[in-house]
Amino acid sequence: MPPNTPPRVAFQGEPGAFSHSAARKLLGESIKLHPRPTFKEVFEALDKAEAEYAVIPMENTLHGSVHENYDNLLDYNFVIAGETSIRISHQLIALPGVSLRQIRRALSHPVALNQCKKFFERHRRIQPAPYYDTAGSVKALAENQFRDTAAIASRIAAETYGGVILKENIEDIRENFTRFFLLTKQKRLLRPAQGEPKTSIVFSTVNRSGALFRALACFSLRDLNLTKIESRPLRGKPWEYFFYVDFLGSAEDEIVRNALTNLKECTEFLKLLGSYYPTP
Amino acid sequence: MPPNTPPRVAFQGEPGAFSHSAARKLLGESIKLHPRPTFKEVFEALDKAEAEYAVIPMENTLHGSVHENYDNLLDYNFVIAGETSIRISHQLIALPGVSLRQIRRALSHPVALNQCKKFFERHRRIQPAPYYDTAGSVKALAENQFRDTAAIASRIAAETYGGVILKENIEDIRENFTRFFLLTKQKRLLRPAQGEPKTSIVFSTVNRSGALFRALACFSLRDLNLTKIESRPLRGKPWEYFFYVDFLGSAEDEIVRNALTNLKECTEFLKLLGSYYPTP
Repeated sequence: MPPNTPPRVAFQGEPGAFSHSAARKLLGESIKLHPRPTFKEVFEALDKAEAEYAVIPMENTLHGSVHENYDNLLDYNFVIAGETSIRISHQLIALPGVSLRQIRRALSHPVALNQCKKFFERHRRIQPAPYYDTAGSVKALAENQFRDTAAIASRIAAETYGGVILKENIEDIRENFTRFFLLTKQKRLLRPAQGEPKTSIVFSTVNRSGALFRALACFSLRDLNLTKIESRPLRGKPWEYFFYVDFLGSAEDEIVRNALTNLKECTEFLKLLGSYYPTP
Repeated sequence: MPPNTPPRVAFQGEPGAFSHSAARKLLGESIKLHPRPTFKEVFEALDKAEAEYAVIPMENTLHGSVHENYDNLLDYNFVIAGETSIRISHQLIALPGVSLRQIRRALSHPVALNQCKKFFERHRRIQPAPYYDTAGSVKALAENQFRDTAAIASRIAAETYGGVILKENIEDIRENFTRFFLLTKQKRLLRPAQGEPKTSIVFSTVNRSGALFRALACFSLRDLNLTKIESRPLRGKPWEYFFYVDFLGSAEDEIVRNALTNLKECTEFLKLLGSYYPTP
């Protein structure tokens, strides 16, 4: 890649999606967007080298882990090059020159509409109108030149489609964060490593009770701090589970290498997803 | 409650929602539905005795745990009286007398539309049209007497609104299950207890690494089998977590009582959510 070529980033959704915010936070302002309709197509874009990076949501504080993307991480051999969290904050967006009192309906994804119930209670003349996605609803305003319609989406969606924010942060719940991974095909160092590295792994055990306890002993005996643990039943295989575990430390540290070697002895399957530096 | 009065059941969504299917599976055909727009209102309905039961989704195999409902379980002191899983299967539904070739668009929640991508690829003349929820889209057909429009929803939604299923099971992914809890205000035995009971708890620890290991020792030392473990970071409190744990056994068993007493010693906070018999 020539030095001044902006990196190509694949993500799910339209430009202006929350994944676009995450991509900018991870890689800076100068990026070339490769939006894709589904997560599968995002992974395919990285696999076919249509992009150097992919940004994918892994979990949300209200809605839990995105199991589909854990499955994709198992299906492809990519490297986690970074991690960040984005607060999911909703803006009421309209075309320039349109004022709040002209608005009669607000387009957005039903999940976002549901997260702004109090706004609709306070503004009874504005009807919520379901749409495919949040950023796409701002795009629809611009394409149709709607002047009686607003959209509910991110700040970056307003910026992307030339919308104006009529009301800021209209979400009911402020404690709504989504955690994203930055994926690459080959290991690449993003920027000077800062802070403490984290490592993500997936493993499975057959006999649950004793096996999980032994698996966790590999960490606690070495004073390694877990930051996430989650079981996921393997359908059709009673008593078999995947475990998603994140812990502090890098797979390049000797102590972590030892823990993983030890863990291999007490699991059926173990995959190192990557070691990375979180972007605060 | 007089003996032949059907039990009143609160759930989120419209009649015909997947929660309605779960309620019927748990309580039988003869139930009085108390649909509510939000989960919070479902919990309120049970609290105010507007219903004897509430049926709430706790986790989905694709989308993870519904943290909002774990929070609600912490906020209210209800009892888990039962548990079941429902396969999320989508039907193409139209008004009676309408044939597939008349259909030009299909209404549903965007999440359901996204789960039927292959159907739309095979039927290019049918446009997906986002709507608030799946069951509500069938209701909209009936209310508007649409003859060029279908809806994508559950079997029970077709039945509820007198729709006809034009195409069965049009979802792309068959391995999509949602797990529901049946909640009551006071402990009540549903029906003759069958199979092996399960117990659900929530606890928190401060120092993660050693504390979780010690907490799990309370189970593994007694050969109690975990069926779920999940950490959830407490926002604004770094290194503090909630853990959701399910295990086999009833809180009425002595061994489980001992495990919970032991667990109390090594946790900051512990709440027993309930012991219940799963409905297969």
